Amino acid sequence: MIPNKEKDLSAWYIELVQQADLMDYSAIKGFYIYKPYLYDMWEKYKSSLEAEIRKEGVQDAYFPILIPESLLKKEVEHIEGFTPEVAWVERAGDKKLEERYAVRPTSETIMYYSYSKWIHSYKDLPLKLNQWNNMVRWETKETRFLLRQRENLWQEGHSAFKTAEEADKDARKMLEIYSKIIKDLLAIPFFAGRKSESEKFAGAVTSYTLETIFDNGYAAQIATSHYLGQNFSKAFDIKFLNENNQWEYVYQTSWGTSTRLLGAMIIIHSDNNGLILPPKIAPIQFVIIPIIYSEEDKSLKSLELSKLIFEKIKSFGFSCKLDDSLEKTPGWKYNEYELKGIPFRISVGEKEVLSREISIKRRFDGKIFNIKVDELSKEFLQELIEKTQTEMYEKAQAKINKLVQKVKDSNLAIDLLKLNKPIIVSWCNEMECEKHIKDLTGATSRVILDDSPEEKVCVFCGNKARVTALFAKSF
Amino acid sequence: MIPNKEKDLSAWYIELVQQADLMDYSAIKGFYIYKPYLYDMWEKYKSSLEAEIRKEGVQDAYFPILIPESLLKKEVEHIEGFTPEVAWVERAGDKKLEERYAVRPTSETIMYYSYSKWIHSYKDLPLKLNQWNNMVRWETKETRFLLRQRENLWQEGHSAFKTAEEADKDARKMLEIYSKIIKDLLAIPFFAGRKSESEKFAGAVTSYTLETIFDNGYAAQIATSHYLGQNFSKAFDIKFLNENNQWEYVYQTSWGTSTRLLGAMIIIHSDNNGLILPPKIAPIQFVIIPIIYSEEDKSLKSLELSKLIFEKIKSFGFSCKLDDSLEKTPGWKYNEYELKGIPFRISVGEKEVLSREISIKRRFDGKIFNIKVDELSKEFLQELIEKTQTEMYEKAQAKINKLVQKVKDSNLAIDLLKLNKPIIVSWCNEMECEKHIKDLTGATSRVILDDSPEEKVCVFCGNKARVTALFAKSF
Repeated sequence: MIPNKEKDLSAWYIELVQQADLMDYSAIKGFYIYKPYLYDMWEKYKSSLEAEIRKEGVQDAYFPILIPESLLKKEVEHIEGFTPEVAWVERAGDKKLEERYAVRPTSETIMYYSYSKWIHSYKDLPLKLNQWNNMVRWETKETRFLLRQRENLWQEGHSAFKTAEEADKDARKMLEIYSKIIKDLLAIPFFAGRKSESEKFAGAVTSYTLETIFDNGYAAQIATSHYLGQNFSKAFDIKFLNENNQWEYVYQTSWGTSTRLLGAMIIIHSDNNGLILPPKIAPIQFVIIPIIYSEEDKSLKSLELSKLIFEKIKSFGFSCKLDDSLEKTPGWKYNEYELKGIPFRISVGEKEVLSREISIKRRFDGKIFNIKVDELSKEFLQELIEKTQTEMYEKAQAKINKLVQKVKDSNLAIDLLKLNKPIIVSWCNEMECEKHIKDLTGATSRVILDDSPEEKVCVFCGNKARVTALFAKSF
Repeated sequence: MIPNKEKDLSAWYIELVQQADLMDYSAIKGFYIYKPYLYDMWEKYKSSLEAEIRKEGVQDAYFPILIPESLLKKEVEHIEGFTPEVAWVERAGDKKLEERYAVRPTSETIMYYSYSKWIHSYKDLPLKLNQWNNMVRWETKETRFLLRQRENLWQEGHSAFKTAEEADKDARKMLEIYSKIIKDLLAIPFFAGRKSESEKFAGAVTSYTLETIFDNGYAAQIATSHYLGQNFSKAFDIKFLNENNQWEYVYQTSWGTSTRLLGAMIIIHSDNNGLILPPKIAPIQFVIIPIIYSEEDKSLKSLELSKLIFEKIKSFGFSCKLDDSLEKTPGWKYNEYELKGIPFRISVGEKEVLSREISIKRRFDGKIFNIKVDELSKEFLQELIEKTQTEMYEKAQAKINKLVQKVKDSNLAIDLLKLNKPIIVSWCNEMECEKHIKDLTGATSRVILDDSPEEKVCVFCGNKARVTALFAKSF
């Protein structure tokens, strides 16, 4: 049995991920195994993102997993941010190496070393490369499937431009692309904006972010896009001759998403009976269960009709599973496929054979859609999928809207944060104020939503309010 | 300029890979950067292989990149084979770790640790998982783009079965799948068979292999598939309850291909003018060059016709590039796209505009195919692509046939091997004999072709001949 989501979200999640056959523990602590059912969804996300970034002229490449320590140290803030989490290779075979190598925590430094060799003229710009790879950050906090792992699968995009405007626009454009896919494919609602000084990426000028909120009020960052300015180009000497024949440093961006996205998706949608998957990303979209119990039943019309429906749905291009095994009862199968979050279930018994009408049961809300077998069309199912995606998104959005409160009163704000409740406030955007709130409540600013606060003064410190921000604890 | 292939194949290759924008050196020795033009081909290979292995019931998963030393040591031959090349992580942040972790040189050990947890009954078998990932082997010999790197992108498949027969059959089936794709997609000819005792994978019972031969007579392994027997299942305690309720150890296979395949493809086909790519894997299949030199020419009919052809070819679903830039002359473009190995070139000038007939120039052999613009169809181009793939394969096969000699005379065999010439001989298949030949000539058995040698005695030692084998030096 899975623990109750409402009572203990963490325990529920850890058990769900294993029971639904998404991940398992490995022989090394904090490193988890991506099982096929999960990996398939990552591949689907990958295809969606690839199609979008290709339109922006981004190409895929691959850079080494090991980064010489001397390179990693070139950008001061960057190395300070990452050093505590770096896994070091110091020996190969029985030979001590002349230099230490970091197992890639992120690839800015090793990529920009090459960018400085490749970029010479304004004609070489923009340069836009993306990598799909694995990265290691030795988390010291407790690790958790997908959301906090010591090794992650992710993509990291790195672009270089002639001007600050172009680069900042690109960073925002990438966040927009993430927003679109995360909404359309994963049906995850989120807050979009930028990070505060203390929460931004080590080495960035501005970190844009998408942040979602779980049922327990905790927030999770699900995508980031950084405007790096010239911080790295100066450290790595990435210069180009501009149209006026003058040397300039390039302006850069980096942007990334990891499998943590899938962790957020699972938590946002699933329930106490198991996974609930948005149909567009589900490895299996439809499951057909003939009501048969014995070898003799196999000759029944219900199996015949099941096969017909199965072939039909497959021919429309949807992924479909027909489970006609006799080892398990239909009831067992219902539970199993509920646990696995298969979006639509069709069971076929005598009633369906007689009426030639089937019921499509939707996992997400148990709603039933009836249709004559002969009227089952690609358009009907496509519309059902689209509608389900939208409704899942809307339901999740409504839940978040209920969780997050706009707060003007200082004491209430502090009290809510202490109770793990996310709040939206007018804020001064000062590091000192943020640190004070963090010490007091454990919560931080998760995302700065805009620069036009409703109130004149900061809800926390009473200084001038400069931004509207979402404050919450980080999951 | 690229060095001459016939004079110095290594120098030619190293220069070609860089000039054609496939790879570059990185900040770390022996680790290379996969640039987009190369990475795209790896993705194409990946799609082809995925389609085939899915039919065999293989699913993709992902296991940790770090492997505890204690696990790696469990299979004795395996650890002895890999230890000299392992990169070790001993420290994270400033903390010395309690155990050393190997950066994955191959994943048998970390995967089979999980297999022993997952497999309990014959119902859990077969288990067939594949990974696309990166692996590190700290080569001590001189490294070389794609062919010998300290980090490689590859896929590794790992399957477990109830019986020895099933497992061995699977290992051979996987080699067959590789054969098909390597022939059809990459147009690489090869010898198929198994490895000798001293050349087989550390931990395997039988290593099946595909081996190709370069122009200089050197051989390169391009795919392997191992029958592991119960070597690992005994070391990792992977047991199942069989149909008779008895515990048995599983029988296993592992099989892999890496980007080294692409290195072999480049060497096999390309020439002194640059890359030659099989059209099915080429990132750009057709390039259209309008004969224009100035801004005024842009109004010419040749540009108009070029665009029409471009749109047509794109609409057929082929990848196509129209280069109407004015910065470079058509002549410069011819050289550039020859260097890049674009399979088909169409230049459009006044003549083509008047006749409405175009010439498709084939990179591989310079042959010209004429066709009326109105008759240009998907079928015509598809057939051209198929024909080209076949002819490239046949040309390469003919070259190899010429290079490899069947030899019966002992002295001649030794002399040829010393001169880097590959030979096929009747052989005793004894480790001692192989070692002797290696010491004498630098060559080893690359692949055992069959168990019915033409001669009664081993060409080298005069003992009983047991197999027919290809001997050559390894590139």
